[in-house]
Amino acid sequence: MIKADYVKPDGRRLTLYTSGRPVRVDGPIPTPGDAVQATPQLRWHPLRGEWVMYAAHRQGRPFLPPPGYNPLAPTVDSENPTELPSGDYDMAVFQNRFPSLSLDAPTPADVQGVPVRAGVGSCEVVVFTQDPEATLAGLPTAQLRLLIDVWADRTTVLAQDDRIRSVLPFENRGVEVGVTLHHPHGQLYAYNHIPPVQEKTLANMRGYLQATGRPWLPDFVAQELQAGLRVVHDTTHALSVVPPFARYTYETWVMPKRAAAHLSDLTDAERDDFAATLHDALRRLDALFGVRMPYLMTVHQAPVDGEAYPEWPLHIELYPYLRAPGRMKYLAGTEQGAGEFANDAMPEQKAAELRALTTSGD
Amino acid sequence: MIKADYVKPDGRRLTLYTSGRPVRVDGPIPTPGDAVQATPQLRWHPLRGEWVMYAAHRQGRPFLPPPGYNPLAPTVDSENPTELPSGDYDMAVFQNRFPSLSLDAPTPADVQGVPVRAGVGSCEVVVFTQDPEATLAGLPTAQLRLLIDVWADRTTVLAQDDRIRSVLPFENRGVEVGVTLHHPHGQLYAYNHIPPVQEKTLANMRGYLQATGRPWLPDFVAQELQAGLRVVHDTTHALSVVPPFARYTYETWVMPKRAAAHLSDLTDAERDDFAATLHDALRRLDALFGVRMPYLMTVHQAPVDGEAYPEWPLHIELYPYLRAPGRMKYLAGTEQGAGEFANDAMPEQKAAELRALTTSGD
Repeated sequence: MIKADYVKPDGRRLTLYTSGRPVRVDGPIPTPGDAVQATPQLRWHPLRGEWVMYAAHRQGRPFLPPPGYNPLAPTVDSENPTELPSGDYDMAVFQNRFPSLSLDAPTPADVQGVPVRAGVGSCEVVVFTQDPEATLAGLPTAQLRLLIDVWADRTTVLAQDDRIRSVLPFENRGVEVGVTLHHPHGQLYAYNHIPPVQEKTLANMRGYLQATGRPWLPDFVAQELQAGLRVVHDTTHALSVVPPFARYTYETWVMPKRAAAHLSDLTDAERDDFAATLHDALRRLDALFGVRMPYLMTVHQAPVDGEAYPEWPLHIELYPYLRAPGRMKYLAGTEQGAGEFANDAMPEQKAAELRALTTSGD
Repeated sequence: MIKADYVKPDGRRLTLYTSGRPVRVDGPIPTPGDAVQATPQLRWHPLRGEWVMYAAHRQGRPFLPPPGYNPLAPTVDSENPTELPSGDYDMAVFQNRFPSLSLDAPTPADVQGVPVRAGVGSCEVVVFTQDPEATLAGLPTAQLRLLIDVWADRTTVLAQDDRIRSVLPFENRGVEVGVTLHHPHGQLYAYNHIPPVQEKTLANMRGYLQATGRPWLPDFVAQELQAGLRVVHDTTHALSVVPPFARYTYETWVMPKRAAAHLSDLTDAERDDFAATLHDALRRLDALFGVRMPYLMTVHQAPVDGEAYPEWPLHIELYPYLRAPGRMKYLAGTEQGAGEFANDAMPEQKAAELRALTTSGD
């Protein structure tokens, strides 16, 4: 992996990556509009016990853009600048122009009776390829391998800021998931605190480690390999399964076979298998109903506050939104009001369906 | 409120309600098909620390039915039975034919390494009116007043079963929220354990009570009335606000002005104001963009395990899914992967917009 760092005219950071060639940029680094004054703030939800992010400056952000303008494509016409320059690079990461969190967030005004603080953090956009028509599943495995390195690099770089405690790379894919730009891309949120899902996971995984003397993940991998029923794809160093506690019908988890805290902890061989197994999982989801599966992909790493997290189960969760052809899963009363998911299918059956699919490799 | 209980031919319970007249049923109690063998089960999610509900028998349930068949309308043709009889009644509650939880759930087979248990509980359908074209906002306030009584009654009845610990009435409204039947109706889930959102709320509200000697809700009501900025509608016994920690753009909470554990704790006068304030909130959401607002409504009561819950803040949460005309809120990477909501607008501004709307009363 080779990278080159730039600063955009409005002060935002841009990093371009290749899988080994030198990065080449043709022309100046563009930006699609005036600088946006981000004023994100956090407020405390006293019932759920969690921070809520407010970013009123986001209301002006683009929805589906008119045909012909794609802010994530390389700039070809200096009259219509995008977020990215033309040149030779494979992947790009830049700070979101309309961030929900910012390292420059100003201190907000007091709100009587409500804990409020600056929305300190970072929101970055990860552009997966220069090709606006591609999909992550359709790219070569080498590009997913690079993506693992890019996510690892961004996590390491962001962790160098003492204010960042947690980094979440993710991809929202499909209009059904609310995607506003169709150029293949993901995002990355960096929080200055440990978010609720990570906190809960930490507590439960610590409990397992304390009770058994072992981290949870290798035991889970051994259990799933022995059962066989829910395995989707198995490689030397990585595994994908529909977990026995799947919340989405075709939910798929991709994991290395040992407990790791961060992507940067994985060896090259582990990253190879992890990327190939992720690629396989994504291809199966697109092959399942013959349509581009709308999904949410989240990368679960340990906090980045300098502590060691031997209990952490590094993994990727894929939430496919279709539970059958043309039938979406919605988060409704029980999911949102009670925090309890209803799944209409057994994981064993859905894993068998995914396993039975024929997918083409590179 | 007057009610009459029935048993359907397939064994499911049906209760018909009026606001005072005797219930009258014309003809036999119908059911739309063969008895469904519900085999719901719960599995433990070891990372999130929550139960996931599995109901594989639900895969055969109807999606948008063909024109002319509405299972929630009164049966007019015995050749095409619906869920409900013809007759004189204002509201109906029956056990879901495809439940995610059942009081008759059989013990499931073991799953190696995964805590599994029967999906004991109840899933009920609450039909708001006989009129298939109505909306909750468009019904007379008296019908919402009856709904409060119906929710209270169902909660009390379900609580009599020692296995039920928590009851969540809710409404999913709109295709955008995944609604499969457009006849105005809600649902009610009864759990045999305390779900995650309720558990978190209990812990936080107990903390407040212990720290201050007072329940949280009256302090919150006083704070919001004093600030004024986020009040939507104020009556003698009930209040609606966009909470200062709103997660959805036009999120609205409706609450009595004192801490109460269950709807059944409210006096008639309190129920009158609670129903009128809820009705006002629903009308404002429909008036906001001139379209039927897709929303999720959840009714938050204390557990029903016989304990006292002086700390509990009885209230209703309305999550409107539109954040602007034609623009939906989606729960994506940060919400689902981190459990942390991003809201593009300030609650104070959105409360002012809702307050400024003119809505017609009955």
